[in-house]
Amino acid sequence: MSVTVVGSVALDTVETPAGRNDEGLGGAATFFSLAASFYTDVHLVGVVGEDFPEQHVALLQSKNISLNGLERAPGKTFRWTGRYHDDINERDTLDTQLNVFEHFHPKLPRAACESEFLFLGNIHPALQMEVLEQANAGFVGLDTMNLWINVAGDGLKAVLKEVDALIINDSEVRLLTGERNIVVGASKVHALGPEIVVVKKGEHGCLLFQGDRLFAVPAFPLRHVVDPTGAGDTFAGGFMGSLAKQGHVDWTTLRQAVVHGSVAASFTCEAFGPDRLAAVTYADIMRRYDAFRALTQFT
Amino acid sequence: MSVTVVGSVALDTVETPAGRNDEGLGGAATFFSLAASFYTDVHLVGVVGEDFPEQHVALLQSKNISLNGLERAPGKTFRWTGRYHDDINERDTLDTQLNVFEHFHPKLPRAACESEFLFLGNIHPALQMEVLEQANAGFVGLDTMNLWINVAGDGLKAVLKEVDALIINDSEVRLLTGERNIVVGASKVHALGPEIVVVKKGEHGCLLFQGDRLFAVPAFPLRHVVDPTGAGDTFAGGFMGSLAKQGHVDWTTLRQAVVHGSVAASFTCEAFGPDRLAAVTYADIMRRYDAFRALTQFT
Repeated sequence: MSVTVVGSVALDTVETPAGRNDEGLGGAATFFSLAASFYTDVHLVGVVGEDFPEQHVALLQSKNISLNGLERAPGKTFRWTGRYHDDINERDTLDTQLNVFEHFHPKLPRAACESEFLFLGNIHPALQMEVLEQANAGFVGLDTMNLWINVAGDGLKAVLKEVDALIINDSEVRLLTGERNIVVGASKVHALGPEIVVVKKGEHGCLLFQGDRLFAVPAFPLRHVVDPTGAGDTFAGGFMGSLAKQGHVDWTTLRQAVVHGSVAASFTCEAFGPDRLAAVTYADIMRRYDAFRALTQFT
Repeated sequence: MSVTVVGSVALDTVETPAGRNDEGLGGAATFFSLAASFYTDVHLVGVVGEDFPEQHVALLQSKNISLNGLERAPGKTFRWTGRYHDDINERDTLDTQLNVFEHFHPKLPRAACESEFLFLGNIHPALQMEVLEQANAGFVGLDTMNLWINVAGDGLKAVLKEVDALIINDSEVRLLTGERNIVVGASKVHALGPEIVVVKKGEHGCLLFQGDRLFAVPAFPLRHVVDPTGAGDTFAGGFMGSLAKQGHVDWTTLRQAVVHGSVAASFTCEAFGPDRLAAVTYADIMRRYDAFRALTQFT
């Protein structure tokens, strides 16, 4: 089954302890699509400006990602600039230029409407609702961020009622629910709508909640993290892509999807932008999936 | 096989978001012994003052912990006072009174010398060396802290050459090795002596390194953490006790020992001091061990 993702496509300027990358390919929908493309057909819905390099279009197309929903609008592409600390889990946003993203209203091509799996990337809840109204997906995942929780909480809660899975950071669960304890926080998210909650904890891995059931997976321990930008979006892409490939959502496919998300995210961290993720093969993915098994099994 | 532990026995005054506990039973050797006693015979070596309550002695004896090495010295018992933040992973030490611990020199009774497994709790490296010179253990584990890394680094390095396993926090690995990345840091610890490195990450679980092999386990997700004091020492007790019960150290028993340590530590967090740990049964331990399997297995 196929996956549709709606979200940002960006040019990122990033500084990390490992070096610097100027105006590299970025954006949540980019990382998501590249990760999901290992598993299934992907429809990317987003917007870029007239300055968006052809080589990036070519890269996405080379992965069989459908770009019929990638609008090219007059003006400049969304840009983000950030700097990571020596503790690479911490970063500062130095600059955000919305550019063509400011007036973006997602329009889903017919094929994108018919995807069985839909992921609403981290955009304004009102836009997420516009997408929901166009799509016919049987399974909907959602990301959000502190900004929308703070400035568009009611809109976000309306969207949450309609989605199956919320995939967010630990700090965002705390902000959304007002609850410090993540296990209790996940229960409160369930009460808002999503039956499935995935809490991402960066280098500490993630937790999966479905009702009272709980699964935990560590992040893959890397000797050298170059750039974690996009790791969370990559996780979501591996998670949704793996579910779509299996074609059904149950406790087994969900746990495996969380591992696939973690595998994909680990590759993203190993180079700037999506350089490493775009270079690996499905065989690499499965080798690291097996390494995750060795990393976590004790019987 | 039996385990000997050398370390502090204390009276702790603790304030957490869940409440307050005045002069409760505490100390690294206490938590360690209680956890290890689920698995095997334990010899506790430490010192208390004349004011140490008989009920605590009775509790430890009720768990078949040998107290022949628990010296009762003139003066007052070691006291620690701490306050946890709303983020219960953070705490401030408000007061430390070494009292009888200040002039403590561990003297191991004959039976304690003959334990096959020895754990050197977090005390001055010179004292740890004194213990090593008395003992005949085949497998030695060690804990330490930022203070000793900073003020007694050479002594610590001399001890590290003699031990099999170092069990410390992530921040301590960073301080000891000067390396931010934990995987690289663990390699550097190997080079200092210990073939086995266990890195504790609090609520994020722990990592086990033996040469190039790596195992990761999450902490057990708890809905309500009352008091994490002693969780790390409890972990070490479950880890060493489980190894001693198996009677041999290999990659399988090590991984299982890390899970047993995590199980025991999770109970400690559920009440003040060792109240919960002391109340559970071996059947409770094994039930949560099975819950860990369900929490982490995906195939």
